[in-house]
Amino acid sequence: MTDPSILTATEAARRLRDGNLTATALMEALLDRARAREPVLRAFVHLDPDAALAGARAADARAASGAPLGPLHGLPLGVKDVLDAAGMPAAYGSPIWAGHVPRADSAAVALARAAGAVVMGKTVTTEFATRQPGPTTHPANPAHTPGGSSSGSAAGVAAGLFPLAFGTQTAGSIIRPAAFCGIAGYMPTHGSIHRAGMKVMSESLDTIGALARTVADCALLVGALTGRELGDPGAWPDRPPRLLLCLGPHASLAAPETLALMERAERAARGAGAVVTRGEMPPAIAAAAEAHPVVMNGEIAQALAWELENHRDRLSPVLLEKTDAARALPARALDEAREVLAAARAAFPGAIADCDAVLTPSAPGEAPEGLGWTGDPGFNLLWTALHAPAVTVPAGTGPRGLPLGVQLVAAPGRDREALRWAEWVRQAMG
Amino acid sequence: MTDPSILTATEAARRLRDGNLTATALMEALLDRARAREPVLRAFVHLDPDAALAGARAADARAASGAPLGPLHGLPLGVKDVLDAAGMPAAYGSPIWAGHVPRADSAAVALARAAGAVVMGKTVTTEFATRQPGPTTHPANPAHTPGGSSSGSAAGVAAGLFPLAFGTQTAGSIIRPAAFCGIAGYMPTHGSIHRAGMKVMSESLDTIGALARTVADCALLVGALTGRELGDPGAWPDRPPRLLLCLGPHASLAAPETLALMERAERAARGAGAVVTRGEMPPAIAAAAEAHPVVMNGEIAQALAWELENHRDRLSPVLLEKTDAARALPARALDEAREVLAAARAAFPGAIADCDAVLTPSAPGEAPEGLGWTGDPGFNLLWTALHAPAVTVPAGTGPRGLPLGVQLVAAPGRDREALRWAEWVRQAMG
Repeated sequence: MTDPSILTATEAARRLRDGNLTATALMEALLDRARAREPVLRAFVHLDPDAALAGARAADARAASGAPLGPLHGLPLGVKDVLDAAGMPAAYGSPIWAGHVPRADSAAVALARAAGAVVMGKTVTTEFATRQPGPTTHPANPAHTPGGSSSGSAAGVAAGLFPLAFGTQTAGSIIRPAAFCGIAGYMPTHGSIHRAGMKVMSESLDTIGALARTVADCALLVGALTGRELGDPGAWPDRPPRLLLCLGPHASLAAPETLALMERAERAARGAGAVVTRGEMPPAIAAAAEAHPVVMNGEIAQALAWELENHRDRLSPVLLEKTDAARALPARALDEAREVLAAARAAFPGAIADCDAVLTPSAPGEAPEGLGWTGDPGFNLLWTALHAPAVTVPAGTGPRGLPLGVQLVAAPGRDREALRWAEWVRQAMG
Repeated sequence: MTDPSILTATEAARRLRDGNLTATALMEALLDRARAREPVLRAFVHLDPDAALAGARAADARAASGAPLGPLHGLPLGVKDVLDAAGMPAAYGSPIWAGHVPRADSAAVALARAAGAVVMGKTVTTEFATRQPGPTTHPANPAHTPGGSSSGSAAGVAAGLFPLAFGTQTAGSIIRPAAFCGIAGYMPTHGSIHRAGMKVMSESLDTIGALARTVADCALLVGALTGRELGDPGAWPDRPPRLLLCLGPHASLAAPETLALMERAERAARGAGAVVTRGEMPPAIAAAAEAHPVVMNGEIAQALAWELENHRDRLSPVLLEKTDAARALPARALDEAREVLAAARAAFPGAIADCDAVLTPSAPGEAPEGLGWTGDPGFNLLWTALHAPAVTVPAGTGPRGLPLGVQLVAAPGRDREALRWAEWVRQAMG
């Protein structure tokens, strides 16, 4: 029998529902793998194997009872440690919150459990999902960062520790680590998944999303939570897409392998019948990339008001630098930056009305060496600021043999298109 | 010497800063009043007089030390029990959360404390700031509701238990109880005050705001939290306003005293030089009032996913009815309702570009009799859905001798105008 830990979530879900796989057997295989990988990988900040197995057995008992099974029945789920799960520690990547055990699930976790998912454990986040990294290493080379802030979720999926994971993105925290680790990542339209029970930093930007090995798996998780019909991203559509290849306002960050990758993506898409146009966003939209950090840091400084007032000495220097700088700005700066984002959001759907999706890099290049920095989110923050759905798919490797990804972005609300054309480009690139 | 419990926050702040009043003396006066009123009023869900006095003494010690004093120095603050305050119980109006004591302040509370406010206690909210009332009674007649969901904050300010309080509004939860209780209420532009550490229900709608005896006091609190310069609402402006008198899509709810009130407001504003036009919102904007409950209930059903899954038997029947109905709708209904709100928000500033503010009722009439229902938010939900700043000011009484209010609304971001013209109308009405 196949090692169930290598199954996609979609395939595992099918077997679990058909009775060809038990949640317990799946969890045991994943725990075996975690035992082997975790000493170096460090994807989990909290993993209680007995509790995870108990959850899997409860799922099997439910199936045996003939009760209706949700779309995520029996699927183990990694939960980024900025989302509360009842009874599990939630430290949000900060020593300030050590020992905190929330009473309740976050909405995302409660909805995932209600759909049948089994929470396997909490995954490493950077400090409050900001810049200061946690201990997670890259699954293919432990001398490199896995990216962040959803570090443990990305590395854990890539290493086969769990088939599905929650991530969150404020700048590039889902798309970038997914690309670095060679998996799929999906940031839905802003506001798709309720943030109750999340340690929210930027109210205007923070978005909950999915990491998994395939686009279809990402759609399975987000579809189960939102009730949305996200289609079958793997089905070959009845026509090829019109794509706007846009490097975006941070194009100068692209490493040579990324420029080569985008050319390869362009050729492959054209070869499969797509119309690919190269273009850039008009200034009023591109301006959102510059306004983004002002909004992000201004709102983070408010979100962390209690920590800043009471535990300043346990915040990282890099976070203090950002929050102090934000507080030194006049209030008008934050309001003006929000107005720039609002104007850009209003203009974005019209600017891409002639194409089905934007094709753009997921990250500047391969995962950087070292664990002190999770990489630059320059290729992500515009789309995050625009509240657009974004999907990254694996697309080969770079000069050091580490994964690369390409990103597809659609207008807000057009999540189906972002998912479908991301999977289409992945297949076209072969 | 004046009883300090009758001072406005603005006047108390001046005396506290000038050394003509101590925070301890102010708190003692308020605690005296609370002892007298609370057995019937029941504004507080948590009040620890010793802790409140300790907070006041700490403020006095700070002043004595010569340390810089914040704009809220020494001012007692009532905190609606959907906002966490470190070390104080937070039950969110629900038995499910009995005994819960959060570790941290919400951002709003931390920022208020950093500005010098002394948290006096937690004030009664309806169940999760939704429909099921708490025990608070109307300060002028205990057989009547004080309104809700910010019931304790409104009743407590009106009864002189504290000069400033936090409220939150999803439909009409700041403006309506403020009007019923005869005080000022201010819902800032959506997103002005960060909701970290709030029990958020509707991410699209929930807005933190202020209740106080005067418009200037409301501006003092929100200005201290946001750093915004909100002006001096009490200063007579150099020109009278152009006002749009708009009853809104729920005009049929208006009691005769409310129709008479709006005519009186119109006459008084004209008498003071205002240009008053009567008009209604175009259909694309008015549609937001119908879409509002779909968004609100859909998001509440997600926010309460953990409670619905684990503590269904301890949710009120009225809340269950709303969340069950929301869950029975297709996911598309929520997305479509959000699109209606987005389109209405995009159109609103243009629709009122010719006027300085909208003049509209704060509530259908006087506070209803009985404690089983906090009244209808029909005159509030359009403006909440539009993310507009709204201010209610007291405007006389109705046939039963209970207070009435009128509401001024401006375009998002134009909080200064909403505050200024609300105070102007109040003065014009004499």
